[in-house]
Amino acid sequence: MKVSFIGLGRMGQVMAGRLLDAGHELMVYNRSPEKTAELSRRGAKVARSIADACGQGGPVLTMLADDGALNAVVTGSGGIIDSLPRHGIHVAMGTHQMETIRSLASAHEAAGQVLVAAPVLGRPAVVSSGKLGIIAAGPAEAIGVVQPLFDAIGRRTFSAGPTPSSASLLKLCNNMVLACAIEAMGEAFSLVGKAGIATNSFREVLTNGLFQCIAYESYSQAIVDRKWDEVNLTATLALKDIGHVLAVAEALKVPLPSANVCRDRLLGAAAHGDAARDWSVMALEQARASGLERD
Amino acid sequence: MKVSFIGLGRMGQVMAGRLLDAGHELMVYNRSPEKTAELSRRGAKVARSIADACGQGGPVLTMLADDGALNAVVTGSGGIIDSLPRHGIHVAMGTHQMETIRSLASAHEAAGQVLVAAPVLGRPAVVSSGKLGIIAAGPAEAIGVVQPLFDAIGRRTFSAGPTPSSASLLKLCNNMVLACAIEAMGEAFSLVGKAGIATNSFREVLTNGLFQCIAYESYSQAIVDRKWDEVNLTATLALKDIGHVLAVAEALKVPLPSANVCRDRLLGAAAHGDAARDWSVMALEQARASGLERD
Amino acid sequence: MKVSFIGLGRMGQVMAGRLLDAGHELMVYNRSPEKTAELSRRGAKVARSIADACGQGGPVLTMLADDGALNAVVTGSGGIIDSLPRHGIHVAMGTHQMETIRSLASAHEAAGQVLVAAPVLGRPAVVSSGKLGIIAAGPAEAIGVVQPLFDAIGRRTFSAGPTPSSASLLKLCNNMVLACAIEAMGEAFSLVGKAGIATNSFREVLTNGLFQCIAYESYSQAIVDRKWDEVNLTATLALKDIGHVLAVAEALKVPLPSANVCRDRLLGAAAHGDAARDWSVMALEQARASGLERD
Amino acid sequence: MKVSFIGLGRMGQVMAGRLLDAGHELMVYNRSPEKTAELSRRGAKVARSIADACGQGGPVLTMLADDGALNAVVTGSGGIIDSLPRHGIHVAMGTHQMETIRSLASAHEAAGQVLVAAPVLGRPAVVSSGKLGIIAAGPAEAIGVVQPLFDAIGRRTFSAGPTPSSASLLKLCNNMVLACAIEAMGEAFSLVGKAGIATNSFREVLTNGLFQCIAYESYSQAIVDRKWDEVNLTATLALKDIGHVLAVAEALKVPLPSANVCRDRLLGAAAHGDAARDWSVMALEQARASGLERD
Repeated sequence: MKVSFIGLGRMGQVMAGRLLDAGHELMVYNRSPEKTAELSRRGAKVARSIADACGQGGPVLTMLADDGALNAVVTGSGGIIDSLPRHGIHVAMGTHQMETIRSLASAHEAAGQVLVAAPVLGRPAVVSSGKLGIIAAGPAEAIGVVQPLFDAIGRRTFSAGPTPSSASLLKLCNNMVLACAIEAMGEAFSLVGKAGIATNSFREVLTNGLFQCIAYESYSQAIVDRKWDEVNLTATLALKDIGHVLAVAEALKVPLPSANVCRDRLLGAAAHGDAARDWSVMALEQARASGLERD
Repeated sequence: MKVSFIGLGRMGQVMAGRLLDAGHELMVYNRSPEKTAELSRRGAKVARSIADACGQGGPVLTMLADDGALNAVVTGSGGIIDSLPRHGIHVAMGTHQMETIRSLASAHEAAGQVLVAAPVLGRPAVVSSGKLGIIAAGPAEAIGVVQPLFDAIGRRTFSAGPTPSSASLLKLCNNMVLACAIEAMGEAFSLVGKAGIATNSFREVLTNGLFQCIAYESYSQAIVDRKWDEVNLTATLALKDIGHVLAVAEALKVPLPSANVCRDRLLGAAAHGDAARDWSVMALEQARASGLERD
Repeated sequence: MKVSFIGLGRMGQVMAGRLLDAGHELMVYNRSPEKTAELSRRGAKVARSIADACGQGGPVLTMLADDGALNAVVTGSGGIIDSLPRHGIHVAMGTHQMETIRSLASAHEAAGQVLVAAPVLGRPAVVSSGKLGIIAAGPAEAIGVVQPLFDAIGRRTFSAGPTPSSASLLKLCNNMVLACAIEAMGEAFSLVGKAGIATNSFREVLTNGLFQCIAYESYSQAIVDRKWDEVNLTATLALKDIGHVLAVAEALKVPLPSANVCRDRLLGAAAHGDAARDWSVMALEQARASGLERD
Repeated sequence: MKVSFIGLGRMGQVMAGRLLDAGHELMVYNRSPEKTAELSRRGAKVARSIADACGQGGPVLTMLADDGALNAVVTGSGGIIDSLPRHGIHVAMGTHQMETIRSLASAHEAAGQVLVAAPVLGRPAVVSSGKLGIIAAGPAEAIGVVQPLFDAIGRRTFSAGPTPSSASLLKLCNNMVLACAIEAMGEAFSLVGKAGIATNSFREVLTNGLFQCIAYESYSQAIVDRKWDEVNLTATLALKDIGHVLAVAEALKVPLPSANVCRDRLLGAAAHGDAARDWSVMALEQARASGLERD
């Protein structure tokens, strides 16, 4: 089917490539046009403008780095809202805040268009291997229309119901659970370390038993090897995510003591100069609090 | 090699069976003698007493349900300390408290014997499939002697160093990390639930992404399906474990805020009548605190 | 000296009255003019407009109920910014948020005027008895000018330095310490209650010993007597205050675990339907979490 | 009335002195006999042994430094249990653990004697000024008998009911509330400090307003003046007290999140080498966690 793809960063490139591979009629657009070269060579049409991409006749997928970029592309002059026909579908696949998605959903609705939020779980290598998970939220009919595109891009689509911002919430919750896992590992590694046991032994116990999964394997490795400067997510951005979760929790009246512990840990890390490092510094900060590490 | 096995509960049966399968010369002892029938049929010798088992000439493995049973078998009159020759090796494979292991290690040492602690990670089905993990701690030489037995019983041995009680600590830490994971899931499920999103969608996001492992798969299922009465570990026993972790942490001066959150959650569950249910009631108690569940 | 007073609610009435008592030349203004009657009778001039009040020639004091009212009076058309001469001093004595004070301070500065923030500690009865505390923050010279007015209104002025918003922060911190005190009492009363000891005995131990002060006397009484519906500060407003403290703490990188505990407790209370009651319901919610109270 | 007093440390001296002042017939005993000189000069009889003191015919009051000393005096050979007649009353006025009081109460009961626990709130100077508070727990009839003695020693007696160990619990709870107050001050002072406001201003706001009491006055002073080495209670002993509170809370199923925060803070302080300093180092440790202080 016809489909346009806006935003050809590292993730966008591989995602769009899979649409081509699956035989869809792909049109691509990127602010820096040189990013379209490779896909164009492989058969994609190149749009000269957002309006161009919106006029192709199929859904428009965006994969943008942050809320600012998404807002500009959607609500800017000559943007998606201005250009997409009535009943047109915009699928926002980046990771965006609930408020952003909520306000864009309203803007699309006012223009007679439909927004589907569909953030993804994984990095470029996961996309290439065909194992990407997609969290889709929006009107069921629209999701039905774009499902073949999700099937081409990823392995599995998780439904988060009819409200687009719910997809953002599930992603935030996933991240919060990960923060709690990192904090728990940090606490356990400090205890093991102060007891004089090799931390790597504990790492092996964890990851060969109940916790044989990416979250524990990669972060326990980062902690044991002190890879604070191989950044997946900075402590600053992790704080922002936790802050969003806590704001939702305040609105919904849900006490989240573990999320608070993570927030405090990240604040401590930031207070000790680690704001720009990987959020696995939560474990470094735990070790400081335990007197295992000096400032 | 020659080996004696004391304690033929459900775990002990399958563990001892694997020693037979691997061709070791097995002698077995159990307080209730009928438990020895099946292994005897398959070729094991049956000891009439603990002393008998200790006199066979090889290491003595115990797999006992609790610290009381282990203390009775080891330090009771006619027990392992009384019966094992000098330089004899006792391998305690049950899950025991650090203090118990510490005091038995001293008693064995005073008698010129050696204690190896080797608690295991897994249930009977895991043993049968050959995937059991074993955490071994004790003098390196003794562990070298019994390694072929560990290789027959399990898939992998994790070394926790020369102090037997360290093996108990690693197991406690593993459990603490699991408690934190359950708490984090409980918090996330309450948030998702109050946001009006199907909890099962979030379960799928978790367990198809970063958390594709037994801990998250089984406990998220228990939470979504409200299987509070399928008991793996009662809230009461979980409290006891967390209490042990916190006592070690106090001795070593390690602040453990997440462990405290778990302790408080379990206390809340117990205060609401759930002490005898599975510790996944941590999520039920979270839901109560969030106003999602009534008492 | 000449002074104008805007905002004659219950606090404003008694504060302005003390200025008259001390012999200052008072001009008053209130949106609802009937509130000026009593002070007028006692000798105050009545301004017909904010502009009128700002033209009297002395400092302008405001005592307004919330940030919305303050913003309207200061930045609205014909408001203080429009009307106060260059070098004129506006003293904001209500309890306002840091951001509000920060933005009004900029607006005054741009108009060549000076803002002093001077929130007070106490209720009308405290003002009448001459025991009001005033937290003053702003340029030292301006505070010097208005000090005689503070001396007339209250007993003591605490200096919070040259930045007006610092006064708001001190007030927020004072409130946070109070929240922690209420939470601590809640925890202790639950423990005492479940131990079968009369809670009033514990109340007496507290308030006749180290904690012989208003905070503990009044809130322990509220808890023991279950005066959840005599509202000093609703749980909702307390949550808002704690939220402001936590936002400042996030910006300054200060982990605040006790403040988080209070926030969670207030969220729990709100989740159980107590949002509009007095924030002493923190203790009621604690009792619920301990199984002492049913929903 | 006749009364014997055992334990003439600094507190014991002034307490016993007040009994004399009130005209009671006092007999005193102390392990180091030189401590009896001053009271003897003022008219007290001096007992040569515990048995002697128990044979005087009135109640026996003890004021001993710790549980070890109390146990020795009560249950040792020739101790109070051995020497006090049936129906004799022993009033333990030191600060002792619940388990100690519980076990001594049983021992006295088995001997047909009565134990009243009556720990006090205050230091020697408070006793001299006649303002001591006494928390009394035990059989009502026995308390009735000794009430005139309490009236001579202190200003006020708080009743903690018929179970002697309840008095210990109230004292522990009082201490827990104080720990929470110190933690709250530490959090607030870090926030104020990082905001660039003079900490002493905040101290004045606190202690001239809602918190005008010994707890806040003395500990805020200790924090602002960094008097970590003027020891009222060491961090180590504070940890022990909090540990006792948490153990009672576990038995009674009461979650105590603020007490946990205090425990973690004290553990952090101990991990950074401050175990032997005054527990006001909770604020120093808070400042470390906030990056305000280096190790």
